[in-house]
Amino acid sequence: MKKLIIPKNIITVNEQNTILTNHAIEIEHNLITKIGEVSEFNLANYKDNIFNFPNLTLIPGFVQTHVHLCQTMFRGLAEDMELLDWLQKKIFPFENSHNKASLKLSAQLGIHELQKGGTTTILDMGTIRFEEEIFDELNKSKMRAIAGKCMMDINDLYPSFIESTEDSLKVSYELAKEFHNTAEGRIKYGFAPRFVLSCTEQLLKETKELMMDFPGSMYHTHSSENESEVEVVRQMHNMENIEYFSHIDILGDHTVLAHGIHVNEKEIGLLKSSQTRISHCPSSNLKLGSGIADIPRYLKENISVSLGADGAPCNNNLSQFTEMRLASLIQKPRYSPTEMDALTVFRLATIEGAKALNLQNEIGSVEVGKKADLVLLDLEKPNQTLIEENIYSTIIYSANSENVSEVMIDGEWVVIKGESVIYDENEIYKKGKTELTELLNRAKLN
Amino acid sequence: MKKLIIPKNIITVNEQNTILTNHAIEIEHNLITKIGEVSEFNLANYKDNIFNFPNLTLIPGFVQTHVHLCQTMFRGLAEDMELLDWLQKKIFPFENSHNKASLKLSAQLGIHELQKGGTTTILDMGTIRFEEEIFDELNKSKMRAIAGKCMMDINDLYPSFIESTEDSLKVSYELAKEFHNTAEGRIKYGFAPRFVLSCTEQLLKETKELMMDFPGSMYHTHSSENESEVEVVRQMHNMENIEYFSHIDILGDHTVLAHGIHVNEKEIGLLKSSQTRISHCPSSNLKLGSGIADIPRYLKENISVSLGADGAPCNNNLSQFTEMRLASLIQKPRYSPTEMDALTVFRLATIEGAKALNLQNEIGSVEVGKKADLVLLDLEKPNQTLIEENIYSTIIYSANSENVSEVMIDGEWVVIKGESVIYDENEIYKKGKTELTELLNRAKLN
Repeated sequence: MKKLIIPKNIITVNEQNTILTNHAIEIEHNLITKIGEVSEFNLANYKDNIFNFPNLTLIPGFVQTHVHLCQTMFRGLAEDMELLDWLQKKIFPFENSHNKASLKLSAQLGIHELQKGGTTTILDMGTIRFEEEIFDELNKSKMRAIAGKCMMDINDLYPSFIESTEDSLKVSYELAKEFHNTAEGRIKYGFAPRFVLSCTEQLLKETKELMMDFPGSMYHTHSSENESEVEVVRQMHNMENIEYFSHIDILGDHTVLAHGIHVNEKEIGLLKSSQTRISHCPSSNLKLGSGIADIPRYLKENISVSLGADGAPCNNNLSQFTEMRLASLIQKPRYSPTEMDALTVFRLATIEGAKALNLQNEIGSVEVGKKADLVLLDLEKPNQTLIEENIYSTIIYSANSENVSEVMIDGEWVVIKGESVIYDENEIYKKGKTELTELLNRAKLN
Repeated sequence: MKKLIIPKNIITVNEQNTILTNHAIEIEHNLITKIGEVSEFNLANYKDNIFNFPNLTLIPGFVQTHVHLCQTMFRGLAEDMELLDWLQKKIFPFENSHNKASLKLSAQLGIHELQKGGTTTILDMGTIRFEEEIFDELNKSKMRAIAGKCMMDINDLYPSFIESTEDSLKVSYELAKEFHNTAEGRIKYGFAPRFVLSCTEQLLKETKELMMDFPGSMYHTHSSENESEVEVVRQMHNMENIEYFSHIDILGDHTVLAHGIHVNEKEIGLLKSSQTRISHCPSSNLKLGSGIADIPRYLKENISVSLGADGAPCNNNLSQFTEMRLASLIQKPRYSPTEMDALTVFRLATIEGAKALNLQNEIGSVEVGKKADLVLLDLEKPNQTLIEENIYSTIIYSANSENVSEVMIDGEWVVIKGESVIYDENEIYKKGKTELTELLNRAKLN
């Protein structure tokens, strides 16, 4: 059955950044099959499947290229700390105490919040165990995702949270075999060695080889986030972080590095020549005191930049709106108020995210032939722009998750009138409390 | 008739930062008359005036010490620009085109948004004309405010937007006589010479003398916001901005300077010795590319710092939540992740704002004898902390205006279940569009 959506306007994010008014968009199964003037459509053909939103603005769903669903539950429990401390004293003990039920709830809470905020695709890094629970939730929730278990065969910070090199590779391989390219291609595998400090060279290298066996999968890790971290990398390998990744040949157009803050000129050259992707997480980078990534420089060099909220305990939201606003604002005093203008940032949050994940033919813009991952925004509110001069600026600087009215993924509604159709908000909140209480008890015993 | 509010907990923001549970708060007329354990109250005495909020957290209303209600309407119409350009090409022509009706709507939109976001007190700078419209709205809306017309007797940037020195002083004096200490003291006058670039020395000095005639009134201006601005100040007076203010004797404990970014060591000493107040506006400072004020340094020197959203066109929100989160996050990479912790920032947003306005005996905390300016937050939502370790951190890092459920000012409810009881949201949005359209037409003709 075909659906027809008739919004107030359509922000296509195509190459010309076309904005359409008086247009409708036809969806068949999970695809955008036609975009045209409303008069071109015979409404009788769509019967009960006409969705008329005369006050709503249609945009492509947001793509977040660095999140940790497994950490959603830990929001507010690891405040005002530096990265390595934050991992050692809080995040590692917490992740180590996850069981299947708590991990499932953490994924539910994260997906619920992401979808309500208009995010339709994520690159997720799990924890070291029970990744099948996350895939199960991604599947049920209709989320589009590239996800994978976290891989760690060194852990000097918190030794009990570790796995053997062999197990890490084996379990990752089995998960990829089971989940890569499932749900009609909506779910793919993302191999996820955590960061240099928690991985042997063997693990980092063999993971790249594994990835090559699964076309369309990604290599997802952290890099150059924090000064203490890069100092440990130097001590371990006598090289800068990205230089080391180049040396062991894991850079490339299927690799996403989260953060990329403490990077030298040589490394910028390596990122560029290898077409490695940077996932920029401004809230997380500020909150952990890590620094401010030089995004305007990356963009000038045509290095792929996209956005991510990172995990709830270092943000403490999962909203692409928050990241867009901050990604723009934090560069302005460093460069100029015209830098990181609203359109540039909106593209990072949508089509550039799609390109980073090599999904630009499927998602990231509203164009015929792409998947129907769509968000409808209500911008006609008294705390928004009264007369729109630049709709991107309205979205970046004054809108937030509250303005999200409907969300569709792969042709199916997941949010209607601001409410999730997948999850019962009160239920997951209550269950989350219970699971977290039990998890914190387990963490004390560990 | 006495009211009794029974919340989940009370964040008092008293000197000991006490957090109370199982407590109720009694309100008589506009005052907090008793705070005690629920069991201490005879509920029969309060009949229909018991407000039971078992899931809501009670906090003092937010105080914003730098806003421009007159600019609310211009949101989104002056994007990605530097301060002096922004004033010359957009804000001055727009303000100059205000008539009574458009200024009224702009004030309504601003107050509506501020109250829905939990702000109960503001220090407002108006435009040069029709200030009585703003006082009228402040009065009707129950907002607590220190407000005053903007004063400008020089305008090299946009010469038609100006008044004579004599008129500026005379009208300000008459407004102060009419409105200072009205509405049972809820409304006071704030003399508001715009900034050095738009004021003769005579205006700046005589305004200070005027202020002395109205005990409890304030002196409210901008200072040291932008590099180009301070360069012009140097050319005009051969001094730094705050040095100049000291030289002409307008610093003091009744003076609020918005911004204070480009300030040298000597000026920090002057701020400290004079007890001058700094209003920190982080969103505005980033968006206009002005810089980042060294707030941790000010706090170390015991200089008064409070927060403000500034005007909608340079933010583009009027939410204290946004300013709190940013005030914390932007200092962390410069200092450390432990700097500007959540409690510190929450105090800046409440009691420190009250102190800046010399209203600390009336507002800024939840204590017996203070005015009943109260906000109830719903923090039991799946995108908030599941188990609270630090409630300040929940409020600063993950909550936003969406979490505001009820707001009381001077003992009266102005927001109930997240909706304004003062304004019809759809009506002011629609009327605002009409008024803005007409204003933009007038601006073209000017």
